[in-house]
Amino acid sequence: MISRSECQARDERDPLAPLRHQFYLPEGLIYLDGNSLGALPLAVSECLRTTLEREWGSDLIGSWNAHDWIGLPERLGNMIAPLIGAASGQVIVADSVSVNLFKLLSAGLNLKPGRTTVLSTTDNFPTDLYMAQGLAEMLGDQRCVLQTVGRTELVDGINETTAIVLLTHVDFRSGRMFDMSELTRAAQQRGALVLWDLSHSVGAVPLTLDADRVDMAVGCGYKYLNGGPGAPAFLYLAERHHIEARQPLAGWMGHADPFAFSPDYTQAPAMQGFLTGTPPVLAYRALEAALAVWGSVSIQQVRRKSVELAELFVALVDETSTLDELELRSPRHAADRGSHVAFAHPSGYSIMQALIDRKVVGDFREPDLLRYGFAPLYVRYVDVWDAVAVLRDVIETRIYEAPRYSVRGAVT
Amino acid sequence: MISRSECQARDERDPLAPLRHQFYLPEGLIYLDGNSLGALPLAVSECLRTTLEREWGSDLIGSWNAHDWIGLPERLGNMIAPLIGAASGQVIVADSVSVNLFKLLSAGLNLKPGRTTVLSTTDNFPTDLYMAQGLAEMLGDQRCVLQTVGRTELVDGINETTAIVLLTHVDFRSGRMFDMSELTRAAQQRGALVLWDLSHSVGAVPLTLDADRVDMAVGCGYKYLNGGPGAPAFLYLAERHHIEARQPLAGWMGHADPFAFSPDYTQAPAMQGFLTGTPPVLAYRALEAALAVWGSVSIQQVRRKSVELAELFVALVDETSTLDELELRSPRHAADRGSHVAFAHPSGYSIMQALIDRKVVGDFREPDLLRYGFAPLYVRYVDVWDAVAVLRDVIETRIYEAPRYSVRGAVT
Repeated sequence: MISRSECQARDERDPLAPLRHQFYLPEGLIYLDGNSLGALPLAVSECLRTTLEREWGSDLIGSWNAHDWIGLPERLGNMIAPLIGAASGQVIVADSVSVNLFKLLSAGLNLKPGRTTVLSTTDNFPTDLYMAQGLAEMLGDQRCVLQTVGRTELVDGINETTAIVLLTHVDFRSGRMFDMSELTRAAQQRGALVLWDLSHSVGAVPLTLDADRVDMAVGCGYKYLNGGPGAPAFLYLAERHHIEARQPLAGWMGHADPFAFSPDYTQAPAMQGFLTGTPPVLAYRALEAALAVWGSVSIQQVRRKSVELAELFVALVDETSTLDELELRSPRHAADRGSHVAFAHPSGYSIMQALIDRKVVGDFREPDLLRYGFAPLYVRYVDVWDAVAVLRDVIETRIYEAPRYSVRGAVT
Repeated sequence: MISRSECQARDERDPLAPLRHQFYLPEGLIYLDGNSLGALPLAVSECLRTTLEREWGSDLIGSWNAHDWIGLPERLGNMIAPLIGAASGQVIVADSVSVNLFKLLSAGLNLKPGRTTVLSTTDNFPTDLYMAQGLAEMLGDQRCVLQTVGRTELVDGINETTAIVLLTHVDFRSGRMFDMSELTRAAQQRGALVLWDLSHSVGAVPLTLDADRVDMAVGCGYKYLNGGPGAPAFLYLAERHHIEARQPLAGWMGHADPFAFSPDYTQAPAMQGFLTGTPPVLAYRALEAALAVWGSVSIQQVRRKSVELAELFVALVDETSTLDELELRSPRHAADRGSHVAFAHPSGYSIMQALIDRKVVGDFREPDLLRYGFAPLYVRYVDVWDAVAVLRDVIETRIYEAPRYSVRGAVT
């Protein structure tokens, strides 16, 4: 049996432990949902105060230059680049994951004339499939078709019609992780491009996009990057595609010379051409402050702790016989997982509500999944121990069967 | 001659004068660029502190329900609706003006099968033209063509190929205002839809979209609505089009049941179907706090003061013989203008730099335009008098010819 004091000892030895003090975390709360919304970095409050008072408030319109608001999309992109193994100049922060998918899917189809299929998995995150559906419906069958297959049929499904293989690196339900290098190679060998959604990977799993010769990627700012609810997203396009790539959301911020106010659109070179409208500065500033933590921590250290936290959680569930009702739906082997684990239980929704009531926050995904995310920047080993103890209590006492825990509400 | 003390007296009588105290304005600064970036409402600082600490910080993921983050796009839309003369349920806050143009242009083309032209004016705000160009390039000539004409050729240019007439209500350069009612009728009589860009109107000019039977509109949150740099934008779609309208940026937030995580996209009914990705909550909260001021002020009062401020500015320039070098490029008749005026001067750029140096902030638009915006919620009559006095001084002394005032930088 793993004891609570062993977990405390691991926290004492943990080189990442001091980082927890850089986050606001409510007293007594165990937050295992950083995979859905990252916790508030204290630096964000400070940064937004400055942005409001000194920049917007005092320097007003001049802040676009004086405080380089205009450079935020590129600057934040270059802060994210090392986290995903990308040389600078290939990542830009813009819009939402969904909108960025539309830009890159469109650009990818243009890069592969004669090929029309976007191939994805049936279990991909819905917005990835929806954006491809919206694009396909707009362009018509002659130009774009979305095809979805099971994970095991994926490689065989790539053929001479496949323009883009659209995959989410870490599955939002199971946490299962694709082999990015292998699948990128398989797609490219068959003449297709790959577009990876890194939403559940970035900030938790080391990524090597350049080395893997990935073509395109998108990712989320509000999960392990802690940029705040609905934080701006990012997109990556390998430099070798910069000259040719064209995207349809041709807004003024993507123009080669936006302040010339020319009536004709000329796409800006490189990643700037993937901007569309005026960037929401307050949201960018929050993300910028949140990204600063990566100056003092390596993603390898973070991954090591993430694996240990998840292993600890699974081991504690395993050794507790009353938790046999929970069925692990994540890969048992840590190398095949991202930074969250999922368990199925027929009363999953009610159990999660009862846990939240006891200040252990994970989340629930239909139809029966309990998800626990491990954000190594602020989650402690002892949190994992305590979370499983509360889980055991909730299951043993069957308190989750109380009617108040079955009332549904939407979460994201 | 109009005296400064007359202006002070007008401020004393001004029913809107107390509203200025709801904004942060730097001591000694005369800010006549609220048409580009609205000033900081004090309520925004307070609201963001709460959003950070109590909502994101303490209630974390639960805030999507507990603080109704999920309802922000619709709630803010319904706060904007009365400002544009729209019944509730027809406006939603989402993305940027540019992205919203793409959604509505696409939806409009689908509503007008057999018609392919988007007709606009050559002097429209560039992003409006660019987004239509991006869409046209994507869809091809058979499905979409952008045609631009001079303002006087507009009505004659609407014919049986015109799907959408795309117009900006108040021109960003001259401030010239279209007759929305008349042009909407002209377009519809010829079988076309109208899409109005309200970026330079909303919050400054009374609008009556429902009464004018407008089909579609977009608008900006960061000008006269004071929502902060790059604030989320809004879009309007008349209820009569809700059943049929389809848009291609089919992200999960626009799904009829986003949290069912179904693999197939089903567009949500009404305006919710025009959402795409996860909304940037911090930016929405800032806009929400900024919109609260409209609970205690009528747009008619605001318009009355806006007209008076602009009339005063023009009259003061007129009566100053040393300002004869400035050529009014806005309509002389107030009813034909929005809430800013523009003057041409060959040294416009340098003059504006010299003015900014003297704490009178307007902006410059290529090639030679000085723009002055009058945001009636916080601009005083005496500010206008002082601004013209400084302008006179800058022109008389020719201080703007100093080399330091000709160094170029981008502003937005």
